[in-house]
Amino acid sequence: MDVETPYLVFLGDAGDALAAKTGQGVVDWRPDAVVGQRRLPGCVANLGVADLSIEEAVEAGARTFLIGVVNPGGVLPDHWRGAIVEALEAGLDIASGLHTPLASIPAIAEAARRNGRRLLEVRRPVGPFRTATGRKRTGKRLLTVGTDCSVGKKYAALAIERELIRRGVAADFRATGQTGILIAGSGVPIDAVVSDFAAGAAEMLSPDNDPDHWDIVEGQGSLFHPSFAGVSLALLHGTQPDAVVVCHEPTRTTMRNVDVPIASIDDVIEQTLALGRLTNPAVRCVGIALNTAVFGNGAAKRAIEQAGRAFGLPACDPLRYGVEAVVDRLLA
Amino acid sequence: MDVETPYLVFLGDAGDALAAKTGQGVVDWRPDAVVGQRRLPGCVANLGVADLSIEEAVEAGARTFLIGVVNPGGVLPDHWRGAIVEALEAGLDIASGLHTPLASIPAIAEAARRNGRRLLEVRRPVGPFRTATGRKRTGKRLLTVGTDCSVGKKYAALAIERELIRRGVAADFRATGQTGILIAGSGVPIDAVVSDFAAGAAEMLSPDNDPDHWDIVEGQGSLFHPSFAGVSLALLHGTQPDAVVVCHEPTRTTMRNVDVPIASIDDVIEQTLALGRLTNPAVRCVGIALNTAVFGNGAAKRAIEQAGRAFGLPACDPLRYGVEAVVDRLLA
Repeated sequence: MDVETPYLVFLGDAGDALAAKTGQGVVDWRPDAVVGQRRLPGCVANLGVADLSIEEAVEAGARTFLIGVVNPGGVLPDHWRGAIVEALEAGLDIASGLHTPLASIPAIAEAARRNGRRLLEVRRPVGPFRTATGRKRTGKRLLTVGTDCSVGKKYAALAIERELIRRGVAADFRATGQTGILIAGSGVPIDAVVSDFAAGAAEMLSPDNDPDHWDIVEGQGSLFHPSFAGVSLALLHGTQPDAVVVCHEPTRTTMRNVDVPIASIDDVIEQTLALGRLTNPAVRCVGIALNTAVFGNGAAKRAIEQAGRAFGLPACDPLRYGVEAVVDRLLA
Repeated sequence: MDVETPYLVFLGDAGDALAAKTGQGVVDWRPDAVVGQRRLPGCVANLGVADLSIEEAVEAGARTFLIGVVNPGGVLPDHWRGAIVEALEAGLDIASGLHTPLASIPAIAEAARRNGRRLLEVRRPVGPFRTATGRKRTGKRLLTVGTDCSVGKKYAALAIERELIRRGVAADFRATGQTGILIAGSGVPIDAVVSDFAAGAAEMLSPDNDPDHWDIVEGQGSLFHPSFAGVSLALLHGTQPDAVVVCHEPTRTTMRNVDVPIASIDDVIEQTLALGRLTNPAVRCVGIALNTAVFGNGAAKRAIEQAGRAFGLPACDPLRYGVEAVVDRLLA
């Protein structure tokens, strides 16, 4: 799936900043891809970019009206439709990660048809896919893996891509979830792909490349999560990473949404390397990314230092202190 | 998906016995579910059951016209349509594992609508599904796993179910692929389920049951197959088996359709138990099922004996000599 940039980010009447998480992610990680924000009366969220009318956004070069806000249940409220139809009339594509398919709303579907615009549902994979071949591809790949879901795999990958580019190394973030796809402008929502093709879709996501190029692939789930380990394994095998970074949230005790203890960092390293060797015998772990958001500075630094010592690996908090140590090891 | 039995098995104009493999599987494993076969002029295959007209089959109680034959590409030939429409007019459902959806053929779709009959595409999962919970269910479960695809996992599971029932133990074969579903009359084509829900679909397939009841679940793929390991892992976690049987074809050297050496029986046992413990800490391996079809009797017996000795487990060829030793161990 390819989403054209730059975006006009739509925040609707978001009741708080958290509801605008997708929009904030795009502004944080792809500031060049955003011409401004469009907010409805009552909107509390603010991405700190220009408030533009749709007309102004089109003049500024916008190509896609990105729905950068979620609301309870992922449903599209009736009073957002007018803005979406207006964007279509002005020649913009619409990109959405909401559960409600845009095309299921007649006024929106009709406006898209009339104006020859695309309704991009980033939850829905765009095939055709094929089964994985296991063939070794050229170029290099890093995959972020986790002790659980929602421990910072996407942000770790984005931070590593940014640091590599800063150092002049060719690198591309490869998105596997809806927010990542909206940030990157392309990707595959891997957990929505039919299971037979999940590893094959992962292969397509990071194709043959230059020998020194790094694809930094956003991980999903955890090999130890009983709901999603199959997705994680398909992504690991299809990505055939040269390097993995283990992501962890130090205060979590049970896996997300299930009654299973959280996996340990050691177990994740060992299992990831054991299973990853099937498609890349040279796979190695180059670091640990902790999400220390709940800690004060002192506790955060201690947690990072302890993790680094315990596993003999560079450790970091990507959002808080950057990923330099991990990238040093990656390129060593 | 539930398919009503008994079946009238349709063989079309099958050019050889192999093309009628699905029909043969149903006759071999569910003889009570078959009232007869329907063959077109030129058909070479013969299941050894009564040749019936559609009218005679309906009189004999048939509920479903089962397309028990494949042809190159899984396409439905034009000259089969008449028989299918005739079956619908006579009040039968149609069940098909072909690639061509029955509903994509207007004459068939229209006849189904007119007669209020179902077109059952066993390649297509019937949801809704949910993500797996990892919750331990009541009752017992056995999963057949493999060193590769197509090594006899379905037949091993069917043979174990049959042997358990022969001994008066409550047991149900649980189908996870299209041929298995047509044999069992129900099941979930697990590799066609969206990857996020694959483990959840496996949980639904073998629900809570009586403490002494065994679900015998048909395995898919292999944890060591780079195309399908994610499917295999989702099925393992969702099934949460108490027991696994490792299936192997002793002459194979590379994984099916990919350039990867075949996994060893030891590695499959070790990895299956290590990963399976996540949802059932008590999982154990109770036997090895070899597919010795290419060997003479002497070589087959030697291979089985050697495998049993090497791994300290009961070994068998389910089709050739039965699964008594494995079931002895299972119930010990």
